[in-house]
Amino acid sequence: MKEKVMYNMERFFSPPQNENVWIINTGTELLNGITVNTNASWLARKLSFLGFKVKRIIVVPDEFEEFSNELKRALENKAGIVITTGGLGPTYDDNTLLFISKSLKIPYEVNEDALNMVKKVYEAMSEPLTKEREKMAKMPKGSIPLKNPVGTAPGMMLYYSGSYIISLPGVPSEMKAIFEEDLESVLKMWSKKKVSENIIKVRGIMESAIAPLIEKASKKYLNAYIKTHPKGKESNEPYIEIQILATGNTEEEANKLASEITSDIINEIETKFSGGKIER
Amino acid sequence: MKEKVMYNMERFFSPPQNENVWIINTGTELLNGITVNTNASWLARKLSFLGFKVKRIIVVPDEFEEFSNELKRALENKAGIVITTGGLGPTYDDNTLLFISKSLKIPYEVNEDALNMVKKVYEAMSEPLTKEREKMAKMPKGSIPLKNPVGTAPGMMLYYSGSYIISLPGVPSEMKAIFEEDLESVLKMWSKKKVSENIIKVRGIMESAIAPLIEKASKKYLNAYIKTHPKGKESNEPYIEIQILATGNTEEEANKLASEITSDIINEIETKFSGGKIER
Repeated sequence: MKEKVMYNMERFFSPPQNENVWIINTGTELLNGITVNTNASWLARKLSFLGFKVKRIIVVPDEFEEFSNELKRALENKAGIVITTGGLGPTYDDNTLLFISKSLKIPYEVNEDALNMVKKVYEAMSEPLTKEREKMAKMPKGSIPLKNPVGTAPGMMLYYSGSYIISLPGVPSEMKAIFEEDLESVLKMWSKKKVSENIIKVRGIMESAIAPLIEKASKKYLNAYIKTHPKGKESNEPYIEIQILATGNTEEEANKLASEITSDIINEIETKFSGGKIER
Repeated sequence: MKEKVMYNMERFFSPPQNENVWIINTGTELLNGITVNTNASWLARKLSFLGFKVKRIIVVPDEFEEFSNELKRALENKAGIVITTGGLGPTYDDNTLLFISKSLKIPYEVNEDALNMVKKVYEAMSEPLTKEREKMAKMPKGSIPLKNPVGTAPGMMLYYSGSYIISLPGVPSEMKAIFEEDLESVLKMWSKKKVSENIIKVRGIMESAIAPLIEKASKKYLNAYIKTHPKGKESNEPYIEIQILATGNTEEEANKLASEITSDIINEIETKFSGGKIER
């Protein structure tokens, strides 16, 4: 594998070499089945909707050789984006960023921007910056740290030879928060897809009753993200919003798909339920 | 990779070359995040408890090259057991057993035992045995079919050069049923671990209240399987049984661990709750 690292910040604005994504999750709790890998499915859903193609999800022990093999394989297979989860925390076995540095032979050092992020969090808690905490700011040289709005360890993004390596924490709330804070807008910028949103407002039908219908639509429309958001009380005065985010190669295509899904769902609701009030 | 297939049934009673397991899941619904990979975590939990070590969980598109690469890699890495899920059904894109045959250069043909299993299911439903249905009995030559007690497609077990390849359906209920019907007892036989069981009966405390405590114990005792089974009504007259299955290299070790966990959990319950009645 060639060592070709771009330290130029501008390069972060060029899209990856292709839309293929490999997800690599570390964590003993995933390999012994104590934790279900919801991080992978959450990321996969988001990425698919944004127009990327997830080609592999790999759970690997957090040991250097094992992790390194999978990372190199992802890059050799020309994954445009490699997303890792786990191993960003302060403990001795949180080594993802060290492993990435060693695998790609890039210096592993304190990133000043990351250090400022970590400092801020601990200052706000009036906690000292110990060696273990400082470790969370150590990254492969040339990385961009990603702000963690709900935890301490920043995420990381690194350009490497046409691909981006993105590292997120294993704690789902932190992983999601980092993704939604900054990363999602970068991914949207990289993607050639256009997105169109519709909201259907439904009164008088419980979310649980509508769930099978939403699941069916999700499976039918793979270029869309369909989700219910309960706004009223489930049993008393149910009021839910169904969010439909459709993607297409052009704005027109995305709008058309969003309309089609909206009509389809409204039609299904009207067929199956009476007494509900629908606004679109 | 050497082609060395044992057609001798007796070989199925020798344990695999080691305790390492690779799980390979196929399915677009896993790669686009519509389905959470609960099959992998369920299998991982069961296998860990039985004394096996899950080294990789890999989700791969159901395309020949991609699947074949991962299967060969698992065998090259000397996985004692490779478990696949998905791709056993009657439709055109259910090709796991064909892919395994092609990857290992083993003839792909109707297995008579499997055919009898499939026939029985359709006869019971007074349904004809179509070409698509017969396909579910096609397997790599030398396979042992695994009975599917809740569906139509049999599972498959194949000995290959020190390793076992085991294929299960993607539908969770069928995957679990096949595992528990015949496979689990074979795995128990292969494993050198001993198992000890304890039950704690708790009255007057809700399962949801005890849940965090059980999660904590599960994370602490990795050689054990700890699960609550609600027997009474959650809110009215709660009565739950906590099942503790502990493993060890000897019966004594397993018994000791089971006792330790039991005492630990009872102690935690007594510290955190008053008013509960505990029997062991």
